[in-house]
Amino acid sequence: MHVLWVDLFEISMRKIEICLSPDLIHRYSLENKIVVVVDIFRATSTMVTALGNGVNSILPVEDLETCRALKQKGYTIAGERNGLPAEGFELGNSPLSYLNGAFQGHQIAMTTTNGTLAIEKSKKGASEVLIGAFLNLQTTTDFILEHKEDVVILCAGWKGKFNLEDSLYAGALASKLSEHFDRDCDAVIGMSDLYLQHRNNLRPFLNQASHAKRLQNHHIEADIDFCLELDVFDVLGRLKNDLLVRF
Amino acid sequence: MHVLWVDLFEISMRKIEICLSPDLIHRYSLENKIVVVVDIFRATSTMVTALGNGVNSILPVEDLETCRALKQKGYTIAGERNGLPAEGFELGNSPLSYLNGAFQGHQIAMTTTNGTLAIEKSKKGASEVLIGAFLNLQTTTDFILEHKEDVVILCAGWKGKFNLEDSLYAGALASKLSEHFDRDCDAVIGMSDLYLQHRNNLRPFLNQASHAKRLQNHHIEADIDFCLELDVFDVLGRLKNDLLVRF
Repeated sequence: MHVLWVDLFEISMRKIEICLSPDLIHRYSLENKIVVVVDIFRATSTMVTALGNGVNSILPVEDLETCRALKQKGYTIAGERNGLPAEGFELGNSPLSYLNGAFQGHQIAMTTTNGTLAIEKSKKGASEVLIGAFLNLQTTTDFILEHKEDVVILCAGWKGKFNLEDSLYAGALASKLSEHFDRDCDAVIGMSDLYLQHRNNLRPFLNQASHAKRLQNHHIEADIDFCLELDVFDVLGRLKNDLLVRF
Repeated sequence: MHVLWVDLFEISMRKIEICLSPDLIHRYSLENKIVVVVDIFRATSTMVTALGNGVNSILPVEDLETCRALKQKGYTIAGERNGLPAEGFELGNSPLSYLNGAFQGHQIAMTTTNGTLAIEKSKKGASEVLIGAFLNLQTTTDFILEHKEDVVILCAGWKGKFNLEDSLYAGALASKLSEHFDRDCDAVIGMSDLYLQHRNNLRPFLNQASHAKRLQNHHIEADIDFCLELDVFDVLGRLKNDLLVRF
């Protein structure tokens, strides 16, 4: 009987769920799970780009004031609200600012409209918090496959509402993992399907989306294109003691 | 100038939004809007079927106890929790129970796991609350097109989480209205697309969904098939003074 129990235990599949908004996180147990936080336009894409370009660490900070104060402590401060750079900050939220090792060796403190709040909410009980982006999709996939925990993908959304780009990333990651996971979650089924339908036309599909339109109005087309590129970096974004470091 | 202003005002398009869970409703303004509440499996499908089969009225009730007590006041009571009929209730939550005028002329009091709570949450400030189902999709569409207010479609979901069947209905209604509405809502874009991709294979697509699986375990395949039928009834489900009546 003991052998049978072990067998059954070993063949039970890992679970994967998608939480479409930080406002729904209370409906999910994060205990001992890998949580992947995603804010494609642009917080988590920018974080992955920064790590991929040699910054030492990134401290996600919820509010502008706390972030601003960290400048005195040697941090390079990055701040954005509603898609625009925040006043008095050295950096906004463009991934392109970090290319070519422009901030290599820096420790960054970063606050954004949706992304940093989502990271804060993802911590409760999770065994790992990863920062996801199309830019390092394969690296995140590989890390998850090498581990055993269940997975929750948390979309930062837009001010608590569903957004298309984060949901499409969630669908992309879930569909790459689908063979190895029990998909007893409707958001996994829906978003995987939506991603697979549009994987070859992500940009035109997203051009209809409200946030992409908002970014277009700010003349940051290049950021949008960059954030949708697949597997540009092989770094993992991994939170350790509140600090995002490169692995 | 006055004439120009009037022209601009008149050509501004109506807005449509989809709220994917009652837990996100605080992010939406319902003031002076038409709110369409949907719980495909099975609360709102059952309500539409009951109205289409001659019941006098339906009183949605949040909890089992209140609903049970209404039996003494002449109501026929219908109650369901977690997909199963509640103890001591005359009716569960199957639309098929109401066919062939089985409860013609009755006043029904009904409580369900997700649907009645969603109806309660939809009332705040809304100018109209409609009860949506595939079974009367065209009638609901026609009513909305004959009016001028903005629209919010509220999915009942499953215990606060996204569910596939309600979201597909929301996408169906939004896509039927798309020509006449400004779609500045990512959930409208995503769910319309998902519905249009699967409109001809809704049942197989939904067979993967968690709630459909749950219902299959309860041997109510026939309910699922019925709830996915299009335009069986030409009744409108419309809430007036907390009471759902036929129009």
